[in-house]
Amino acid sequence: MRSPLAPGSTIGILGGGQLGRMLSLAAARLGLKTHIYSDRTDDPGFDVAAARTTAPYSDTDALAAFAQSVDIVTCEFENVPAGTLAALSGTVAVCPPPQAFAVAQDRLHEKDFLKERGIAVASYAAVDGSEDLEAAFAAVKLPALLKTRRLGYDGKGQVRIRNRAEAEDAFAELGAVPAILEGFVAFDREVSVIAARGSDGAMVFYDPAENVHDRGILATSRVPSALSAEHASQAKEITRTVAEALSYVGVLCVELFHRATETPALLVNEIAPRVHNSGHWTIDACAVDQFENHIRAIANWPLGNPGRHSDAVMVNLVGEEIDRWEKLAGQPDLALHIYGKNGTSPGRKMGHYTRLFPKV
Amino acid sequence: MRSPLAPGSTIGILGGGQLGRMLSLAAARLGLKTHIYSDRTDDPGFDVAAARTTAPYSDTDALAAFAQSVDIVTCEFENVPAGTLAALSGTVAVCPPPQAFAVAQDRLHEKDFLKERGIAVASYAAVDGSEDLEAAFAAVKLPALLKTRRLGYDGKGQVRIRNRAEAEDAFAELGAVPAILEGFVAFDREVSVIAARGSDGAMVFYDPAENVHDRGILATSRVPSALSAEHASQAKEITRTVAEALSYVGVLCVELFHRATETPALLVNEIAPRVHNSGHWTIDACAVDQFENHIRAIANWPLGNPGRHSDAVMVNLVGEEIDRWEKLAGQPDLALHIYGKNGTSPGRKMGHYTRLFPKV
Repeated sequence: MRSPLAPGSTIGILGGGQLGRMLSLAAARLGLKTHIYSDRTDDPGFDVAAARTTAPYSDTDALAAFAQSVDIVTCEFENVPAGTLAALSGTVAVCPPPQAFAVAQDRLHEKDFLKERGIAVASYAAVDGSEDLEAAFAAVKLPALLKTRRLGYDGKGQVRIRNRAEAEDAFAELGAVPAILEGFVAFDREVSVIAARGSDGAMVFYDPAENVHDRGILATSRVPSALSAEHASQAKEITRTVAEALSYVGVLCVELFHRATETPALLVNEIAPRVHNSGHWTIDACAVDQFENHIRAIANWPLGNPGRHSDAVMVNLVGEEIDRWEKLAGQPDLALHIYGKNGTSPGRKMGHYTRLFPKV
Repeated sequence: MRSPLAPGSTIGILGGGQLGRMLSLAAARLGLKTHIYSDRTDDPGFDVAAARTTAPYSDTDALAAFAQSVDIVTCEFENVPAGTLAALSGTVAVCPPPQAFAVAQDRLHEKDFLKERGIAVASYAAVDGSEDLEAAFAAVKLPALLKTRRLGYDGKGQVRIRNRAEAEDAFAELGAVPAILEGFVAFDREVSVIAARGSDGAMVFYDPAENVHDRGILATSRVPSALSAEHASQAKEITRTVAEALSYVGVLCVELFHRATETPALLVNEIAPRVHNSGHWTIDACAVDQFENHIRAIANWPLGNPGRHSDAVMVNLVGEEIDRWEKLAGQPDLALHIYGKNGTSPGRKMGHYTRLFPKV
């Protein structure tokens, strides 16, 4: 087992968006420096990192220099090219492990991975070309979602299908790239579990958050969720199964559909091999938040207590919602977080706030 | 009244020690950038600042460039040379105001300032030269403390005097610089009030912390203190008087001696025109901590709620105490903060931790 990374060491982070930025802030609290590598010049993470590199993710010289300058590498996004990870991993340890990205980057692999481990998912079928649609509709009941296998996020790369006549157009609309057809799940709620796993296999779990999406983008997360204690425990055990199967190190998020009166009650929607928007409430409601636990896990420190001192509701500030910052700053019991991004556009995550409540 | 500094603006900070570092982290949470100016090359604040300048505090060219590059300037330490503040203030607003530094930098001015405003302090007398000792002992009862008027901190620049025969040596030991003789206060406890004041005169007060020092250096701060509600309220009112008299903008700390059964119960020990070690518990126990409220005040934002969600004990990690980091990292309900300093020396503040408890 690796020894703990001492204060003063440097964590390399691929990606400098708000997640990289909050990872940097968490690392700083522990006396660790960060070096952010991004293909963008104006990432908000750069403002709080000790060192910065702007280069393409395919630039092997820049990656080699980056690998030399840091003690470990992690990522703020799951769509890191496999070649980037391969270029780094000869020189420096990369956490989470490459197999986690391989599974999370492809919806078909992800579903197969979960199903093979006895974890319930929505019905699904591969659609590599339009000739596969016929067989897919035999396996998946309508209504359904047609989703690209790769590069989807925040509701992008998916189309809802209510009748078979829409399928050809939907496939074309997605770019005729490899896709999967997924049965629509009539869920009571969406929940997510944020967990951290150390290289020694130790795990900690934050209580499941109840999430509401708006046009595919997370709008709010609330803890505690309305899950029963039994279902909350099941959600954590599913997350444990996923993490162990991936030999995972770091923080991961498992998003689930909950159907209170059906069996099974929980279906996994997707896995994010990283800190996650639905865990931002932990910054203000826990002594050790998801960002610090990710840093602790990859730096081989003991994991921190995921217990919360307060109940919480996290609200995302998307696009022009950030224009309310001045009003929000004046409201009591509200922790405001602004990501420092250059410029607002529709759907862009610009900040969030968390309201704290005495724990019930 | 100034309009609020918009996210994306830059706060200039003089000094890049742990306070400048934690101010930077707080600014980042609000989407503000920081530019740290320090006469040191390896300050830990540099690791989390968007821009960095290393130059002497007397370098007028470097100060001019710094003033041009930022939207407002603040300080992490009170002994900023008056010339530095003057060089900046022609170009950029400086908060807190220069008069706060003038008062806090000189123990004699500080005591006179407080006394003139009807605030109780220990008995004291000026000792500009050894010829003043005779008159000083007429005004101040033994035991007493001889303190340099300027540049004292963490118990430095002071000597305890039990009898008059020690006075000459003590004065020489301090370097025969202008000093004051202060009557020793037999206190029941030391407390401090952290408050923030906006440019519109609005103020918020954190509950007083009860502080324990070890060899002149803060060891622990606890909230709530053992002050009665009446005395806690008096401590806050004293702090209000100080802040208003200085037309203060930002966070300030007033340290007081408490004598439960004497009148007056509270004597002011000293004023710090900055965020303060005895307010570090606010990071983990409040939705808006002292650092964020300092940034909010100087950026002309609404002040944040100083209420706490948890009771707390903050413990400093001084010198080699930081070597316990690995053990501390493994303890539950403990928020660990390491400052990322290059090298440990006796008396150097290397980090702290805060334990949270359900609010009583």
